[in-house]
Amino acid sequence: MTHFSEDDFISHLFAPLAGPEGLGLRDDAAVVAPPLGHDLVMTKDALVAGVHFFADDTPQDIARKLMRVNLSDLAAKGADPLGFLLALAIPSHCDDAFWRAFAQALQEDSVLFSCPLFGGDTVSTQGPLVMTLTAIGVVPHGHHVPRFGARAGDRIYVSGTIGDAALGLDVRKGADWTRACNKEDRAFLLARYLLPMPRLHLRRALRAEANGAMDVSDGFVGDLTKMMRVSGVSARIHLASVPFSPAVRRAIQRVPALYDHALTGGDDYEIIAAVQPERASMFEAEALAAGVQVTCVGEVVEGHEPPQFVDESGGLHSFARGSYSHF
Amino acid sequence: MTHFSEDDFISHLFAPLAGPEGLGLRDDAAVVAPPLGHDLVMTKDALVAGVHFFADDTPQDIARKLMRVNLSDLAAKGADPLGFLLALAIPSHCDDAFWRAFAQALQEDSVLFSCPLFGGDTVSTQGPLVMTLTAIGVVPHGHHVPRFGARAGDRIYVSGTIGDAALGLDVRKGADWTRACNKEDRAFLLARYLLPMPRLHLRRALRAEANGAMDVSDGFVGDLTKMMRVSGVSARIHLASVPFSPAVRRAIQRVPALYDHALTGGDDYEIIAAVQPERASMFEAEALAAGVQVTCVGEVVEGHEPPQFVDESGGLHSFARGSYSHF
Repeated sequence: MTHFSEDDFISHLFAPLAGPEGLGLRDDAAVVAPPLGHDLVMTKDALVAGVHFFADDTPQDIARKLMRVNLSDLAAKGADPLGFLLALAIPSHCDDAFWRAFAQALQEDSVLFSCPLFGGDTVSTQGPLVMTLTAIGVVPHGHHVPRFGARAGDRIYVSGTIGDAALGLDVRKGADWTRACNKEDRAFLLARYLLPMPRLHLRRALRAEANGAMDVSDGFVGDLTKMMRVSGVSARIHLASVPFSPAVRRAIQRVPALYDHALTGGDDYEIIAAVQPERASMFEAEALAAGVQVTCVGEVVEGHEPPQFVDESGGLHSFARGSYSHF
Repeated sequence: MTHFSEDDFISHLFAPLAGPEGLGLRDDAAVVAPPLGHDLVMTKDALVAGVHFFADDTPQDIARKLMRVNLSDLAAKGADPLGFLLALAIPSHCDDAFWRAFAQALQEDSVLFSCPLFGGDTVSTQGPLVMTLTAIGVVPHGHHVPRFGARAGDRIYVSGTIGDAALGLDVRKGADWTRACNKEDRAFLLARYLLPMPRLHLRRALRAEANGAMDVSDGFVGDLTKMMRVSGVSARIHLASVPFSPAVRRAIQRVPALYDHALTGGDDYEIIAAVQPERASMFEAEALAAGVQVTCVGEVVEGHEPPQFVDESGGLHSFARGSYSHF
């Protein structure tokens, strides 16, 4: 258990993360002067030990995941991070060393992503560690990228590669198939699961060129389906175009059933974007300039039915399990 | 357990609470256009079943407490509520009826306090119900009331009455002394514990007249001590002036030990304000016009020692236990 008092816990561990808006964490509230001509984007995700991460993950990995899954939501809206609020429900088995390491890692990410701590709350719990983070971002007024903005005719892009984290979770769990993986692939997949990289570098390209976007947290198939549904449209996806990492390709070659798993498993934290064709080359160029690989995987079509997933032979692929649910 | 899917849970129960900023809860993030010339005030409190409320409290009481303890923080900053984000870590024993009642009560408070839902997250947990709420408020630029703004010479005011909730918690727990209470006193004290009333009506008077303020959540003695410490000052409190309700007076008459309990117990959600003497009559008049009773209980003095509590005979009263800690 922690030997800090609540005041010491805050002043020793978390005050170093605070921005000026956090008033040195000496107040119950933060005061934020919003940049003129900008809207604020606000998102809030909760992570529970045993549900979203393993209770024996390192405090560093837990801290980074908490920060990054929220920044991923800001990235999908095209927003620049401004700051965050943090609430921790703390079980007695987390000791001082845990919290020192947690705060240190959170501070590093706070600096890395220019996202200082505004405030929050720490309480005790008899249950598992529960952490919630509210991330605040900014976009020029009227320029956020809505999830429900996809229009028929838009090209559908996805950033990075899909399925690494789902297979990385298998590595974390020691699933049978992972024993045949080479060491490098196992390390790569595990890192992609443990340490999401929010695609913030893509935010300007999204703001400038995308009609709609969302981050992929519950699996590519399920999240694409959700994005099309809230946009009132459907989609046609060319499965051969979906970008896989070499590690995932090798795993699927050995165990074909992993194909569906890669496309439906959670925790990718990549971005799906809908871009109208006239803006596609500009979007690709801006993404390239920002250092983010984007791949066109299909197009938005009219209709209200679920997206169609077309395989290499031109047939329709159906997925037994649409998406991963943490609910 | 709940039979809602996560999507249904959100669209059926919580979408009716959403303001336009919440984008119909169809997105992962809210988009807020801050009112021109205003700062945003942000606060985030967490409540855990078994720590901050009883697991068998009604869903209505739990929902209202969650909303109101956060609004109490906004009130202390002099802020008008703008909206809130909500995260719920949901145990399996909370059923559909629980969540319908919870959402209904939250909606009523959301309307009552003009504080619509912006967004949030719902996840499952194997542990107790954990709820965190991020409340967003607005103040004219530069006019928030800091906790650490008290200056030597200021008069110290407190709103409402102190100790009702601490004794109400005893009623909730069925403490021995409460059996001698009459029915009306028990009901009054219990209601004050279960249903905090954030002192939002005081916000304009605080903005206009107060140098510093904080809400009393962890007990009058402890929170006053904290406010003086972060302000770099001390205080002299005239205990005979501290406002008690008739129910608390009657309880103390029967059980003198309840005196300290009333002054150090938690959950008052009243406001402590430091007001310079030239502004005191104006502050009192504005509070009166807003329908909130405020009482001068002492004055801020120079020094870094803890506040002095002077009893009716002019002697110093010391408290065995400074404040209530939920940590």
